[in-house]
Amino acid sequence: MEYRFARRVEALQSSVVRDILKLTQGNEIISFAGGLPAEELFPIEAVREAADRVFTEGKGSLQYGLTEGYLPLREQLCQRMAEKGMTVAPDEMILTTGSQQAIDLIIRVMTEPGDVVLVENPTYLACLQVFSFSGLRVIAVESDKDGMVMSEAERLIREHQPRMVYVVPTFSNPTGRVWSLERRKGLLDLCARYGVPILEDDPYGEIQFDINANFPTLFSLAEQAKVGGVLYTSTFSKTVAPALRTGWAMGDRSVVAMMAKAKQAADLHSSSLDQQTLDQLLRHFPLDAHIRKIADNYGARMQHMQKLLRESLPDITWVEPQGGMFLWMQLPEGLDAEALLRCAVTKGVAFVPGAPFFAEEPQRNTARLNFTYTQGEVMELGIRRFAEAVSEFVARC
Amino acid sequence: MEYRFARRVEALQSSVVRDILKLTQGNEIISFAGGLPAEELFPIEAVREAADRVFTEGKGSLQYGLTEGYLPLREQLCQRMAEKGMTVAPDEMILTTGSQQAIDLIIRVMTEPGDVVLVENPTYLACLQVFSFSGLRVIAVESDKDGMVMSEAERLIREHQPRMVYVVPTFSNPTGRVWSLERRKGLLDLCARYGVPILEDDPYGEIQFDINANFPTLFSLAEQAKVGGVLYTSTFSKTVAPALRTGWAMGDRSVVAMMAKAKQAADLHSSSLDQQTLDQLLRHFPLDAHIRKIADNYGARMQHMQKLLRESLPDITWVEPQGGMFLWMQLPEGLDAEALLRCAVTKGVAFVPGAPFFAEEPQRNTARLNFTYTQGEVMELGIRRFAEAVSEFVARC
Repeated sequence: MEYRFARRVEALQSSVVRDILKLTQGNEIISFAGGLPAEELFPIEAVREAADRVFTEGKGSLQYGLTEGYLPLREQLCQRMAEKGMTVAPDEMILTTGSQQAIDLIIRVMTEPGDVVLVENPTYLACLQVFSFSGLRVIAVESDKDGMVMSEAERLIREHQPRMVYVVPTFSNPTGRVWSLERRKGLLDLCARYGVPILEDDPYGEIQFDINANFPTLFSLAEQAKVGGVLYTSTFSKTVAPALRTGWAMGDRSVVAMMAKAKQAADLHSSSLDQQTLDQLLRHFPLDAHIRKIADNYGARMQHMQKLLRESLPDITWVEPQGGMFLWMQLPEGLDAEALLRCAVTKGVAFVPGAPFFAEEPQRNTARLNFTYTQGEVMELGIRRFAEAVSEFVARC
Repeated sequence: MEYRFARRVEALQSSVVRDILKLTQGNEIISFAGGLPAEELFPIEAVREAADRVFTEGKGSLQYGLTEGYLPLREQLCQRMAEKGMTVAPDEMILTTGSQQAIDLIIRVMTEPGDVVLVENPTYLACLQVFSFSGLRVIAVESDKDGMVMSEAERLIREHQPRMVYVVPTFSNPTGRVWSLERRKGLLDLCARYGVPILEDDPYGEIQFDINANFPTLFSLAEQAKVGGVLYTSTFSKTVAPALRTGWAMGDRSVVAMMAKAKQAADLHSSSLDQQTLDQLLRHFPLDAHIRKIADNYGARMQHMQKLLRESLPDITWVEPQGGMFLWMQLPEGLDAEALLRCAVTKGVAFVPGAPFFAEEPQRNTARLNFTYTQGEVMELGIRRFAEAVSEFVARC
């Protein structure tokens, strides 16, 4: 039988990141491509003990769970959020299969095909896929190192009346950008004024290198300012482990209730073994100390990668990341990073070309390098291969 | 901020089953409502050992996984499927968050809003939600105890040119119906002739009371007949445990590849802790013997429930289930099962009224009783309460 597919899925590009991840699995390519956390830092013994406690709770722990997610975990998460200035009740939160699903559900319940969503330029690739899959028109707002340019955001809101503004204000993917406080407040004002909901995606906010830095979430600023309108998503994938596949969304309870209706149809509920394991982990494991350890470690890896890049590719520029997992680089003018990738892979190193992160006109001479998955000699060898590929390319141009 | 929602989600009814499940959690109501497996039978020690083996494999087991699902589990599942006459390769299979997600993904990649899907009458409630959420027109095909009436199916295929036919041919939810071999072959012929894909949902096929019965899947019959066109979904929720939230879909690799693209956007991948745990479980635990134990146990529970119902409600009729988890009953003419439910809940017992399982004109005097979650004295007390509610109602009418 010849199968026909929905037009929107035909148009959907498979994620370059995921495809490269697939390509590099099990072979000798050093990958700066995926957004993979450092496996060495996974708290596997604590996870094992937590899972064991779940099994000890009895057979009921293997039964179907609530669509909204395991209540004790939501309660604990609400406490954690409160410590970050975000006050939510358990019925204003839903647990999802990673924050990716939280975003997909928000888009499924809040948009119609043809609606406009505004994004930073560039922005998170997998979200562009969600938007495309839901038939949205994505419009990129001119952005600099401090976030979206507010005059442009306002102009585009007036012109397009978007259904939503999607932002990653802290250690964004791919650029590592941190929005200034002024821009954060600016966007809140703007969106409150025009009645446009903000989707604040915050998977990396806790991976902050300077322990004293303070980057308040839009959600917390909205609470202080007593305006609503922010939906917030985050995940345990970077702070505990991706395999436990648990993210969450929080916001107005009307939105959460709609998401729960949609999630009933989408998958009934996410893994309750994972959710119960995380609940036990939060009770018995010093997660904040663990996150500090991860952030320090990643900060050191980032510094090491910067040093290697400065030594081997003095002409390349980037903004030093203050957190997160990615270094976003400007390659020499005219260099196409997708062609560079093909060359790099033959040399045994992978990264992600920047173009797919742009909703509209791509800057083809950009690249995203992950600094959290590799370290030490492997990172050194990888950067050496990468530098070789770049140098050859520049010589050829 | 006042949030606006997509029209399709506004229209989406929250699942009655899930809502009742929520209502009855943690209180004294005896529930015949949910499709809950017997907790007593969950192989929790084997699951614990399997999870422990995963952790012993090392920290890599907590990393991101493939969108298509953990390959060793897909390989083992392909072997299990081959034993049931269904030959598939790992790239013709995708692991999902329960079979519910498999169905949602298939619908998302293969249909456009406004497309028609044909279903049995009545059919699985949560699927009606998926169809509604995707904006499909659902048309119910007249069905009797042997499955869809073929002349009606053909008439409706010609009239509506559906994008898909959705069926649960073995121990269907809610009716427990088993399609005859003739109807199975009939539907395959029909759909091959008109080029309509079949979505065969088989969550209960292995829960078969008579060890000697043989109900071949449509997928296996299509293979024998060398016609394609069947997409098959199933799950570990009924045979191992729902908390592990792992289902699968299999079929033509073009469909599976499209589903993987959609799943990248939807949630990147399902829990890999769950998938790896199931992989270890299949290697070290005699799952087939366990399934036989479950099926025997459920068969005995079903017999017990039948006996109780015959004694207390001699005028009620049903077809004896040959497997699965549900007894589908015809209440006296004119009795509205939704009103009965409200009365039953005050007496401390819950079930699911039949009406929401009908895509078109509902038979309001029908009810679905789950016989797998309760047993012994609890089941007896529950049926006593149920019979009281029915008797009161009949007396009032």
